[in-house]
Amino acid sequence: MRGVFITFEGGEGAGKSTQVRRLALLLESYGLSVTVTREPGGTPLAEAIRGLILTHEAASEDGLTQALLFAAARRDHVLRVIRPALAAGHIVLCDRFADSTRAYQGSKMPEAELEQVIALGTDGLKPDLTFLLDLPPEVGLERARSRFTGVEDTFERSNLGFHREVRRRFLALAEAEPARFVHIDASRDEAHVAETIRSVVRAKFMAGQGDGER
Amino acid sequence: MRGVFITFEGGEGAGKSTQVRRLALLLESYGLSVTVTREPGGTPLAEAIRGLILTHEAASEDGLTQALLFAAARRDHVLRVIRPALAAGHIVLCDRFADSTRAYQGSKMPEAELEQVIALGTDGLKPDLTFLLDLPPEVGLERARSRFTGVEDTFERSNLGFHREVRRRFLALAEAEPARFVHIDASRDEAHVAETIRSVVRAKFMAGQGDGER
Repeated sequence: MRGVFITFEGGEGAGKSTQVRRLALLLESYGLSVTVTREPGGTPLAEAIRGLILTHEAASEDGLTQALLFAAARRDHVLRVIRPALAAGHIVLCDRFADSTRAYQGSKMPEAELEQVIALGTDGLKPDLTFLLDLPPEVGLERARSRFTGVEDTFERSNLGFHREVRRRFLALAEAEPARFVHIDASRDEAHVAETIRSVVRAKFMAGQGDGER
Repeated sequence: MRGVFITFEGGEGAGKSTQVRRLALLLESYGLSVTVTREPGGTPLAEAIRGLILTHEAASEDGLTQALLFAAARRDHVLRVIRPALAAGHIVLCDRFADSTRAYQGSKMPEAELEQVIALGTDGLKPDLTFLLDLPPEVGLERARSRFTGVEDTFERSNLGFHREVRRRFLALAEAEPARFVHIDASRDEAHVAETIRSVVRAKFMAGQGDGER
């Protein structure tokens, strides 16, 4: 198995980071080299940009301003973490990537500009596989809220209508690229979702290899 | 005189901020409304981005990452400060704008990507007039160093060869757009430079108005 880039997308509370951790542990148990990372963030500069977006409301009021900041963070992340890890043959698991920009900033700016900014930020890198952890925003936001005690950040403060639009955009992206996306019902229990992810990863990238669990 | 956007460009130590202040005082003495601003900066978000670029070396190592950050800062600045001031009929004097991105980041990335990022950051806004305060980098850096006591930032730490390339790029930009650019020999004394700037502004934007000084 050579370098493979797998991203996890979906709304708040869909269980992305939990599933990233579970898949990482599983792949490591097979003796594979795994790099786990997330966006926005993943490098000191990208984390600083994430902090700046969270603390400056101006960064979120204009879709393109926000997209430019995410693109700068993503570019640093791609150049310093993701591309080197892929070059070293790692399986890179990333919690959110460019599709989050399409889903969250897409309604606030023209598509042509959005794709321009994304191309600049990703350095042209596309995931080999993307899991869309899909669930109704009412459920996801309730889950996300129960994780934090009184902490509300810019992302979660947005209203339900916006999160419904984000979900609609994620679903449209998955439909448009069926070879890359795997749609997963994230309202199922955690173990069930993990098993679905495991079977897809094995079928797609590990065909012909022995199953360590059999 | 309706809203007019005037930018000041050039290397370190060329006297841009001094000349911006002098022209602002002069125009205000004519009873005109003037907005003075600068890049990178000009809004709280843009200042925060400027701080982030100065404190994270990673932000300067890749030309496009840096250009994306400057574009986010510039967009906030254009949308919140420059466009509203122009709409209110102000003369906007800006210390550095998109041409600085062309001159400083231009050698580190393909031109097509550079112009894409610039178009996104400026929201399509172009200066009505740009003063290029031109002088040999050896002279400018010496002047800039004498202003600070031991403070060296990322911009000034770069070597002389880079600053020569920046100057070459500024001169090429001025040559390519003679209707917008006015080339000024910034090695002349401050009062002489101010007088040149005054006469250009009067000729270009105040024809037919009485001269308050005569």
